[in-house]
Amino acid sequence: MIGIFNQKNVAELSYYGLHALQHRGQESAGIVTSDGHRMHIHKGEGLVRNVFSQMEMDRLKGAHAIGHVNYASIAESEALNVQPFLFKSAGGELAICHNGNIVNSKEIQAFLEREGSIFQTNSNGELLAHLLKRTRGDMMSRLKEALNYMEGSFSFLVMEPDALYVAIDKDGMRPMSIGEFTNGGYVVAAETCAFDAVGAKYVRDVLPGEVLRIGAAGITTDNYAKLTRHLMCSMEYIYFARPDSDIEEINVYESRKRCGAVLAKESPAPTADIVIGVPDSGLSAAIGYAEAAGLPFETGMVKNRYIGRTFIEPTQELREQGVKMKLSVIAKVVQGRSVVLVDDSIVRGTTSRNLITMLKNAGAKEVHMRIAAPEIKHPCFYGVDYSSYEELISAKHTTEEIRERIGADSLGFISVSGLMKGVGRAEKFGKKCGHCTACFTGEYATHLYNDEVTT
Amino acid sequence: MIGIFNQKNVAELSYYGLHALQHRGQESAGIVTSDGHRMHIHKGEGLVRNVFSQMEMDRLKGAHAIGHVNYASIAESEALNVQPFLFKSAGGELAICHNGNIVNSKEIQAFLEREGSIFQTNSNGELLAHLLKRTRGDMMSRLKEALNYMEGSFSFLVMEPDALYVAIDKDGMRPMSIGEFTNGGYVVAAETCAFDAVGAKYVRDVLPGEVLRIGAAGITTDNYAKLTRHLMCSMEYIYFARPDSDIEEINVYESRKRCGAVLAKESPAPTADIVIGVPDSGLSAAIGYAEAAGLPFETGMVKNRYIGRTFIEPTQELREQGVKMKLSVIAKVVQGRSVVLVDDSIVRGTTSRNLITMLKNAGAKEVHMRIAAPEIKHPCFYGVDYSSYEELISAKHTTEEIRERIGADSLGFISVSGLMKGVGRAEKFGKKCGHCTACFTGEYATHLYNDEVTT
Amino acid sequence: MIGIFNQKNVAELSYYGLHALQHRGQESAGIVTSDGHRMHIHKGEGLVRNVFSQMEMDRLKGAHAIGHVNYASIAESEALNVQPFLFKSAGGELAICHNGNIVNSKEIQAFLEREGSIFQTNSNGELLAHLLKRTRGDMMSRLKEALNYMEGSFSFLVMEPDALYVAIDKDGMRPMSIGEFTNGGYVVAAETCAFDAVGAKYVRDVLPGEVLRIGAAGITTDNYAKLTRHLMCSMEYIYFARPDSDIEEINVYESRKRCGAVLAKESPAPTADIVIGVPDSGLSAAIGYAEAAGLPFETGMVKNRYIGRTFIEPTQELREQGVKMKLSVIAKVVQGRSVVLVDDSIVRGTTSRNLITMLKNAGAKEVHMRIAAPEIKHPCFYGVDYSSYEELISAKHTTEEIRERIGADSLGFISVSGLMKGVGRAEKFGKKCGHCTACFTGEYATHLYNDEVTT
Amino acid sequence: MIGIFNQKNVAELSYYGLHALQHRGQESAGIVTSDGHRMHIHKGEGLVRNVFSQMEMDRLKGAHAIGHVNYASIAESEALNVQPFLFKSAGGELAICHNGNIVNSKEIQAFLEREGSIFQTNSNGELLAHLLKRTRGDMMSRLKEALNYMEGSFSFLVMEPDALYVAIDKDGMRPMSIGEFTNGGYVVAAETCAFDAVGAKYVRDVLPGEVLRIGAAGITTDNYAKLTRHLMCSMEYIYFARPDSDIEEINVYESRKRCGAVLAKESPAPTADIVIGVPDSGLSAAIGYAEAAGLPFETGMVKNRYIGRTFIEPTQELREQGVKMKLSVIAKVVQGRSVVLVDDSIVRGTTSRNLITMLKNAGAKEVHMRIAAPEIKHPCFYGVDYSSYEELISAKHTTEEIRERIGADSLGFISVSGLMKGVGRAEKFGKKCGHCTACFTGEYATHLYNDEVTT
Repeated sequence: MIGIFNQKNVAELSYYGLHALQHRGQESAGIVTSDGHRMHIHKGEGLVRNVFSQMEMDRLKGAHAIGHVNYASIAESEALNVQPFLFKSAGGELAICHNGNIVNSKEIQAFLEREGSIFQTNSNGELLAHLLKRTRGDMMSRLKEALNYMEGSFSFLVMEPDALYVAIDKDGMRPMSIGEFTNGGYVVAAETCAFDAVGAKYVRDVLPGEVLRIGAAGITTDNYAKLTRHLMCSMEYIYFARPDSDIEEINVYESRKRCGAVLAKESPAPTADIVIGVPDSGLSAAIGYAEAAGLPFETGMVKNRYIGRTFIEPTQELREQGVKMKLSVIAKVVQGRSVVLVDDSIVRGTTSRNLITMLKNAGAKEVHMRIAAPEIKHPCFYGVDYSSYEELISAKHTTEEIRERIGADSLGFISVSGLMKGVGRAEKFGKKCGHCTACFTGEYATHLYNDEVTT
Repeated sequence: MIGIFNQKNVAELSYYGLHALQHRGQESAGIVTSDGHRMHIHKGEGLVRNVFSQMEMDRLKGAHAIGHVNYASIAESEALNVQPFLFKSAGGELAICHNGNIVNSKEIQAFLEREGSIFQTNSNGELLAHLLKRTRGDMMSRLKEALNYMEGSFSFLVMEPDALYVAIDKDGMRPMSIGEFTNGGYVVAAETCAFDAVGAKYVRDVLPGEVLRIGAAGITTDNYAKLTRHLMCSMEYIYFARPDSDIEEINVYESRKRCGAVLAKESPAPTADIVIGVPDSGLSAAIGYAEAAGLPFETGMVKNRYIGRTFIEPTQELREQGVKMKLSVIAKVVQGRSVVLVDDSIVRGTTSRNLITMLKNAGAKEVHMRIAAPEIKHPCFYGVDYSSYEELISAKHTTEEIRERIGADSLGFISVSGLMKGVGRAEKFGKKCGHCTACFTGEYATHLYNDEVTT
Repeated sequence: MIGIFNQKNVAELSYYGLHALQHRGQESAGIVTSDGHRMHIHKGEGLVRNVFSQMEMDRLKGAHAIGHVNYASIAESEALNVQPFLFKSAGGELAICHNGNIVNSKEIQAFLEREGSIFQTNSNGELLAHLLKRTRGDMMSRLKEALNYMEGSFSFLVMEPDALYVAIDKDGMRPMSIGEFTNGGYVVAAETCAFDAVGAKYVRDVLPGEVLRIGAAGITTDNYAKLTRHLMCSMEYIYFARPDSDIEEINVYESRKRCGAVLAKESPAPTADIVIGVPDSGLSAAIGYAEAAGLPFETGMVKNRYIGRTFIEPTQELREQGVKMKLSVIAKVVQGRSVVLVDDSIVRGTTSRNLITMLKNAGAKEVHMRIAAPEIKHPCFYGVDYSSYEELISAKHTTEEIRERIGADSLGFISVSGLMKGVGRAEKFGKKCGHCTACFTGEYATHLYNDEVTT
Repeated sequence: MIGIFNQKNVAELSYYGLHALQHRGQESAGIVTSDGHRMHIHKGEGLVRNVFSQMEMDRLKGAHAIGHVNYASIAESEALNVQPFLFKSAGGELAICHNGNIVNSKEIQAFLEREGSIFQTNSNGELLAHLLKRTRGDMMSRLKEALNYMEGSFSFLVMEPDALYVAIDKDGMRPMSIGEFTNGGYVVAAETCAFDAVGAKYVRDVLPGEVLRIGAAGITTDNYAKLTRHLMCSMEYIYFARPDSDIEEINVYESRKRCGAVLAKESPAPTADIVIGVPDSGLSAAIGYAEAAGLPFETGMVKNRYIGRTFIEPTQELREQGVKMKLSVIAKVVQGRSVVLVDDSIVRGTTSRNLITMLKNAGAKEVHMRIAAPEIKHPCFYGVDYSSYEELISAKHTTEEIRERIGADSLGFISVSGLMKGVGRAEKFGKKCGHCTACFTGEYATHLYNDEVTT
């Protein structure tokens, strides 16, 4: 998700910004530009580079834009849910895009339908558009009122013909940062790596409960909520974000490395010869683990970069015969050695089991699995991809049971407090908060409504 | 390039094998299978996963196959040059594919045209087919005779309905290895990473001047040349091969790491705080450098994985404005630090200059560039992608001039002997040989014919 | 536009029905099916055969459906305007599609926006959805109320999970017919040729101002308007409809033939040797003209069927050099002969001029142009593709001036009364009405609102 | 098949020429241009408009070209057989394309393989290239020698960098005409309709056994065979060619009309009310029948133009339910009438049966089927699409049996002599010859080699 205000080549810059954010969503992409009067839209399914051709770029005229990449695989009537959305109403054109998960969306939609709203999509953007319609005053006032309906994690970008608005949820679960161009324009993005991509400088993060307006007169700010917390999603640090991004001024790579170091303290592997990481998201923590443990960091696994939509998956027969497609082991590195294998997290456990089997088959003497996230014992209702107890191995098994199932010689997870310490947000935001850890602890930041959970 | 003999799902296995070799060629892909009597072919432009659909796989019947991925961007009449080739003649069907560069191909083609041959492509495969046609006896005898015409670097895979043949040039410049399936079938491939992909075990490498036949009776071998050398292309170790491949039993990742260590000895950077590598091919040497220098290895750069054919390149204006698409720096890692930046090689020098500018802009105090290849002072006529003096910065400038041009605080290249030592082939093949180092030293392994060089 | 109620293979039948209606719109296609509870949608740009694959057909479950093909080239945000639309509201799911042109759409949209509606498209379907939202009672009552807002020409298909609704404007400008399957299901379509395609039998036409409900209990009918007229669009008979369709029980081919005969009486060509028609839409009238005039009907022109989206249009230079792509003359047929050339209508006159030049170049002695439509002197605001005086040659020139410009030896148009007589609706609906002839006479059926015209 | 010599926009002209010939082959298309020194090629599968984009057109530089459209659905290794072919040999570059069927191709290929030739395709173009290789002298002499090897029907276009060569078989079974541009260039094409498309004038036809050279000095001609006949394929007149083409100066539409008239004499239908034709290829004969019989010609059937590659064919169940996709009946025209239905030919009889069923279902009182070709009792080995007795209903059944099977009230075929008379070639070429009628009479023009037939 990216918003750009007052830049000459705004469609191109949005394209390169979304390209830098591509890891956050590979299913669809879209850009709406505003020329100050009219808005122009193009969106479609696929990677940024496939959705946009030069022809479409040329049609996206203007100096302001919002853009979006989506990761949800959208089942039916796909094209309809691709963001951003462009709405026309008495107030003129309005473009909206959105990340996160609003836990009371069904309640809001039911309320709005009772009040007479008609929906064409299942999107939170359309929800916001309808809520805004029920409010009065300038857009800031209206956003302040509308956002108060919503509970859960969210970040919104709203564009009027001559202004951008940005807001995140009052618990600060979704990241959103503001950057500046040297020539006076602004950019907001879900990750700071997009600023590097477009040649802008980081200014600050959007605060929980804050709503900002970026217009010709610069940035103005207000709060739609008073009781706010800083509960950034732990998984942003653990695996969503790119290592070159900073989240609230903490670099992601460095936080992962520090978590690796904490993990080395909490779960040492005294017999180990080397440390290897699972590419790509386990590598940073592995470097930290190795450094802290005084063990050599080695490249023990290689990832094939060429898997994509049209790839033909091997049959079960071929898998059993040993066909590998995504990750492979450097046998010479692990042969006869006791290996610490660092990964970012364990959800179902199947990947871990496969990796350990591959290492053992390649001659590894021992495999000590170390995980740079705590055990995920609870589903996420705020936007991470595991939404039921069913799919979580840690919800159903003890650490020892998991170790046995995945075939590791030892298994260690970072503790929740170790994660906190490793990321290091506590120093900034105070001891009590700093992270949403609901998936580790079950302490959800909000009421859960229809998603209420039964074990 | 892959060949598979006597396997049930031979089209699928070829697909996964070629997928593992995709880094060696992304322009086109093809597979020919043999059912013992008739051959079946499918080939096309693009990545393996785009060229083949399940429908084509189903048509590729049989138990034997050869397959190919091509990296050359083929200008005109593209489709015609896509490998493998399938030939029909009095002797029946024959499939051929090929890597490398035959330096006397024009001379051979002129000779054959004078003798009455007609060519539809510019391929060395068609050259071999015509040479074979002029010989008599069984295929082994005929290959022995035909291959003696050819000078340069090459590896050939030839398939008759019930046998595979494989040969490399007599100087051993191109790698080719043999693997075995547990159920008795065989696989040959340009890189051993393909064996892991298809679930086969490494057996041995094809030797310089050797020609092998794989048939129902197993493997038989013969030599088409007596005076052979082991002059494996240095660039295979330096950047072509995947780190999980072994070339003549030397693991590529480990050889790169050792070169990094040699480089740390030869070109220390006493004031440096950290070592970072250019992703992906500079990372292994950077790990080795850091370990040998006793400096921390850090992730200082991140590569965007999503660039592909349809990507819209930024205009010059946008580049100058700071738009970045492929590599980005983790500013927090390099800020205020003196950085050793390890890359695999320098060809034109433009990439190095850009990277150093990015690091300096991100706040790096000093950048000490270290290159895990010697200076490339001469073009390659054996298949590597620089074929003129014009494009080689080291052919035109001293090390100090290059340092200045790329903006490094210091610049060091590994020595040719250091490279030898790092890779470690000398121990296996004797002191005098082990590598083609023509691009560093100008000592070409063969006569150069029409490609004869003037500085 | 097609709606099908209670049929087993409803997605397939919709596909074949839309395929039969493809001549009415080649830009986009879409189908919504209902399984009695939920609705399923697929739509996209292109021909029916390109928008739908078997995979999408399989997802379109249910026994009821509405489908649409669109002819308007939709500029920006194309995908958004593709029909049908699927709306979710308190009342459940609702699918809508639409043909024609509502002349007060801007007024209605402005009114609804003032009342708080938000629009995502420019479609009349979304307009109807919002109007319906403001009404109460069952769907029949609500449609009766909502349709009264709308002026202009229209036909609507509305689907609730277990019922279809169909209505046309109160002046009956758009055709819509009802058919029946032998096994009890129903079909409604813009043209009866779709009934043949799906194996259904014609029952009757939808009447002006009528709204019908097709449900499990069969068909029920009501009127939303009392003062209705029968002003079927003349152009439906003249060139929109397929010759095998019947509009209000009058066969299109036969009506065209009769018009040709009337034209032969009104504008004889005494010196003519043969009669030829412009393929395809001038052929029927040419047969009628020839028969009435006692002249031989000949095939004097051939149409190339293979022009499509990706066709490269010739440059002006090549056109002048004589390159022809779409129509060509059978020289042997016209050489030395005096030819009557019958076409359906003249809009700009450029096609006529080109055809006559081609005939003369091929050796025709004389060309007597006869047009089976009256002179089009006024734009259409009800959906036909000429919406300004600017583009109409007959709005700016006398018949004699046009004759001279197109290079005909003589030129004759059918009279308005001749057209009436030829089509033959007067016998059914009484003398005063039967056709919308606004584009010939300037007598528009409705107030014109923002489209109000100045010559 | 088209060849153009000495024209400025030769790629574009080839494109428009092939587009005019598209009805002769919809499976693949290709163009080779020559700039006087080098040749440039582009070819691919699909319609002309899909194979070529402006980018490819721009690459096809030069003033001379040959181009081809192919109708054969080519099974395996499709891309390899797409024409034209471009060959490189000692003599330089040579481009070849070809139509027809050479009955001794296997014998020639076996001979050439014994002599050492290697084949990459199954094409007759490659056969000719290898034969040419074995000859000496200038290209005219070499073609004269090479073409004498070949028996069967053929037309060849051969391009050297600065000359075009064209030849047809010595029995003149394939048509090929020569045209002239006003500015001095030449065009040769399989059908004269291509001349109109590119703005050229017809000059004359290529004669049986003739070989022509078109070069800077104009056209020179020679004969490779002395004993020649004029046995033009009857099917060219009956249904291959476009009605606006002339074959040996006889217009195809007019010949079809005359055949219709002959058929009306030979097989009158005294009780008939109207005459209708099967679109498109039965229409011309229907017009002729109607005129000769004094009956009204009517449009009784309409063809859907939108069927193409991706069309989803209806299931058997849906067909039985009455789903129709390709042809539909105008019920009002045939209701209660006795109809003469004229079609171009009967091969299997299934289409005829379906059409008659449709007409009867639509209310036709009687259907009198009249066929403008004689009974096809023998397969064609010269290029027409029926190559076995198995598929020919007339090879297995009497006229009366066929009538019963297709459900006609009466059935009449034109006689062989009637066809001759209708087409009218006898007047030009003498009584005994003028047509290949092998499929009607079994009198093949050549020895049949491996295709020798057993009933």
